[in-house]
Parts: sequence; structure tokens; C-alpha cells
Amino acid sequence: MPVLVVGSVALDHVKTQSEEHRDLLGGSASFASYAASFYAPVRMVGVIGPDFPEPYRALLSRRGIDLAGLEVTDGQTFRWSGEYEADLNNRRTLSIALNVFEHFSPKIPAAYRETDYVLLANIAPSLQAKVLDQIARPKFVVADTMDLWIEIARQDLIALLGRIDLLILNDSEARLLTGEANAFKAGRKILAQGPRFVVVKKGEHGAILMSESETYVIPAYPLEEVLDPTGAGDCFAGALIGYCAQKDDATFATLREAVFHATLVASFNVEAFSLRRLESLEAAHLDTRATRFREVAGLR
Amino acid sequence: MPVLVVGSVALDHVKTQSEEHRDLLGGSASFASYAASFYAPVRMVGVIGPDFPEPYRALLSRRGIDLAGLEVTDGQTFRWSGEYEADLNNRRTLSIALNVFEHFSPKIPAAYRETDYVLLANIAPSLQAKVLDQIARPKFVVADTMDLWIEIARQDLIALLGRIDLLILNDSEARLLTGEANAFKAGRKILAQGPRFVVVKKGEHGAILMSESETYVIPAYPLEEVLDPTGAGDCFAGALIGYCAQKDDATFATLREAVFHATLVASFNVEAFSLRRLESLEAAHLDTRATRFREVAGLR
Repeated sequence: MPVLVVGSVALDHVKTQSEEHRDLLGGSASFASYAASFYAPVRMVGVIGPDFPEPYRALLSRRGIDLAGLEVTDGQTFRWSGEYEADLNNRRTLSIALNVFEHFSPKIPAAYRETDYVLLANIAPSLQAKVLDQIARPKFVVADTMDLWIEIARQDLIALLGRIDLLILNDSEARLLTGEANAFKAGRKILAQGPRFVVVKKGEHGAILMSESETYVIPAYPLEEVLDPTGAGDCFAGALIGYCAQKDDATFATLREAVFHATLVASFNVEAFSLRRLESLEAAHLDTRATRFREVAGLR
Repeated sequence: MPVLVVGSVALDHVKTQSEEHRDLLGGSASFASYAASFYAPVRMVGVIGPDFPEPYRALLSRRGIDLAGLEVTDGQTFRWSGEYEADLNNRRTLSIALNVFEHFSPKIPAAYRETDYVLLANIAPSLQAKVLDQIARPKFVVADTMDLWIEIARQDLIALLGRIDLLILNDSEARLLTGEANAFKAGRKILAQGPRFVVVKKGEHGAILMSESETYVIPAYPLEEVLDPTGAGDCFAGALIGYCAQKDDATFATLREAVFHATLVASFNVEAFSLRRLESLEAAHLDTRATRFREVAGLR
């Protein structure tokens, strides 16, 4: 089954302690769509300016991502610049230029309106809601979010919770949203506000999947070298919904496996800047790491 | 096979945001011995003053812990006082009174000197070394440590690393000891200094077991309520070596299972102050939670 991904498309400037790269392909929709494409056909909706590099469009197309919903408007493509501390868990946003994103209102092409699997990748909750307004009875809607929206658009986000099946956020965001330091308690509070499922990501410490009656915990894939964590969360969300779409199922049992695959794809993404590691990723690499992951974590 | 546990015995004063308790049974040897006793016969070595409450001695004896090595000397029992923030990961030591512990030099009873499984629970590395001086060719030596010793007795600790089989420490301590923010890299640096195995504990995020050629990662058991984390690390170490002694084996495969059981026992310990939760713990409770843990973490 196809997946509809709506989110941001950006040109990133990323600094780590060892490297600095400009004009990288970034944005939540780019990472999520690319990750999802390993599991299912992807329909991507976003906005760019005429300055968006053709090789980046080609990169997405090569994975079969349908770009009919990638709107081009006058102006510059959204730009984000960030810097990581030596501890890659800590990131500082250096600058944001919304550009064409400032007046973006997602328009879902008619051919996409009956997509069953919808990922509202990380953008403002009000835009995520506008996407849902245009979709006819999707089977499974996943929304990603970030601390910024919890701080400046909390009411929009809470309204959205009643319209989605699964919310993905990280542990510090779960704490910010609910006031609960305990990730499981925070997850339970989020479930009480609407979604049937919640995933709390913990970066290098793994992830938690919860429904009202079930819990699943998984460690992260062990990595000694992390080059750039940018987009890992987006890749996680993309692979998760891609896996569900492939199975055409979103029961808890399938979601457990989806979280496993999401963890796996995210583990590749952090090994290089932008989408560079995923660009050379083959199904065989995923299979090999899946086997090793099951072994080192003693998973069934 | 029996386990020899050497460490501190204390009377604790613990404050959390919701409760405060004085004169609790505490100390690394108390927690570790009690946890180990669920898996193997335990021989405990430590020091107390005549003020040590008889009910605490009885508590340890009831689990069959051999207290022939629990020395009583003139003076007061070691006292520790600490306070937890709302986030239970953050603890402040309010006061320490070493008392009889100040001049403690562990004396291993003759009958204990051929114990094959030895846990050097958290005490000064120089004292841990003195224990090893008195033991004839143990099969498996585990040492626990803490940030304090890394800061004030680093050379003693590094010297000890060449004499033990497994070092247990938490992630912030591993970083402090090695300068590596990545837990796997830190673990590898520790292995290069002597021990065949290292366990990096991550509290609510689980634990990592490493040898030079193998890695095992496990999440923590999901808990929504944590009352008092004091002694969780000691219980982890005690259950780990207890399990190895029960199997009379310390291969990587057995250590994986040992880490699973260590995680399990620690998860009970944090549910109440001092050893109160373990006091009422029965084998059936451990079995039930083990089954549930395997289920929620998808473990084999």
C-alpha cells in the first residue's frame, strides 16, 4: 500500500565537532519519504523554491518517490542551520529561514486523497490538520512533532491528537507535553488525549511503543560512531509507517515490528550527513543489520 | 556455587520528593548480598558498629546469607544521607559519616578464601584489592564502582582493572573514567585495561554488556512508578553474580542471562525504600515478571 508523507523539505547547514556541510538535502518529508521508500511506494507533499537543486529531486525520484505533490513556488527553499555539541544529543539551531515555507498550505493532489497510510511528518500542527482535512478516511495516520510546536502551538497539537492514530515524539518532548518525567506515564497521558498508540523515542537509548493495554520496549542498535543525528527521527517515522503500509496492517503486533525496522533505518541514517548513508543502502544491508540487531539484543 | 560479597553496610537516610526515611538498611554489600541470595548461597563481608539494629541482621540471615564475615567493631555504623530530585536520576549526597568504615580493612574468613564467585561491591578500589589479596584463584571476579572512586582513586581503580573479570559501572561513570561520550566506545576502552567483560548500566534505559568480540543490549523493565532508586545498582551486581554462581559459568551466553536477571531484580528494588520490596519478593514474582519482561521487550 502507498504512503502519503507531508512535511518540510529543506536545505540544511550542519556543523558537528568534526565536520561542517552546507546545502544538504534536509527536511522532515525528505528523510521520512526516503526511509519509507524501503518498505512501500511513497507520495510526498511539500514545498520548495526554484533554487532546489535538481540532483536532490533526482535522488528522491530514483527511489520511486512520487513528487507530484512537491509544489514549487516563487522564493527560496526553506533553510535550517544547526550545530551539535561533542555530545551529539545536544543540538543548537543556529538559524532558520522559512522562505517558501512561510506561506505554505499543503495541497494534497486529488490522486493522493484516498491514501490509507498517512505520515504527518514534523511541521506545524495546524498544517498537519489541514492535510487531514483533505484526506478521505485514512486507515492509519501517524504524526511526528517537536519541542517547538509543543511550546508555541500546544493547543493545535492537542486538537490534532484527537484525529491521529499514533503520535511519535522523543522523551524530552513527551515530558514537555505532559509534565511527566517518567516516559511510560507521559505516554499514558498522551494516549488519554486521543491517539490509539504513542511512540516515545529515546535516541541512543531506544524507543517505547504503547497502547492503552500493551507496551513494547526496544534498545537502539549499538553504534560506536555517530556522525550526524539530523533526520534520524524523521527516518524512524518514515520507516515505521512504510512497514505498516507494506503489511497493510497497524495492529500492535505489526507496530512492534515496525518500531524494530524504524530503529534499524534510523541507525543507518546517523552514520553519515544528510541522506548519504541511505543513498547507498541496499535491502541486503538492512537484512544483515536486522539479523545482527536481533542477535545483540536477544530479540525473537 | 556460593558467592562472596564484600562491600559497605550502612544506615541510610533517604529523601525523595514524596517521602523521607531514616535508619534504613543500606550499603552496597547489603543490597548486593540480598539480591544474590535469590540465586546462590551468599557469604557477606563488611563492618558494622554495635548500634547496627538486630532486625537488619535477622533480615539478612533469613535469606540464608552467611554473616560470619560481618565484623563488629567499636564505633558507629557507616551512615549515608541522600536526597533525590523530582527526576529520580539526580541524587545529591547530603552527608556521609564513615564511622567504623574509616579504618575498615576487609578480613576474609579462612572458610571463604576459596570462593569461586567474588563480588567486590562498591567500596574504595584499594579495599577491593585487599580482598583479592586474600582469595585463592577465584573463577570469576566482578567489581562495582562509583564516580567518587574515579575522581579520588583513579590509579587504584585502574590497577584493579587488571585483576578482575568484569567491571560494572553506569554510563556517566564510564564517560568519567574514559572520556568517551559513546557508551560502547567507553566500554571498549575499559576492556583494553584488563577485564574480559564490562557492563555499562543506563538506569531507566537499560544496560550494555560487552566483551572484546561480543555485545549485548537490553532495555530496562518498564516501570511507571519508581519510589527509591537507592541500591538498584548494588542489586543489579548481586543478582548478576548470583546467577553466574548458580550456573557455575561465566561465559558471554550466561552473562547475557545474568544481565537479564540483574535488570529484573533491580526493577523490584526501586519500587520501595531500602530492601522493603525484596523482603516480600518470592521466586514466583520473579518468574512472572521475567515472562512479562520477555514479552514486552520481545526477548527470546
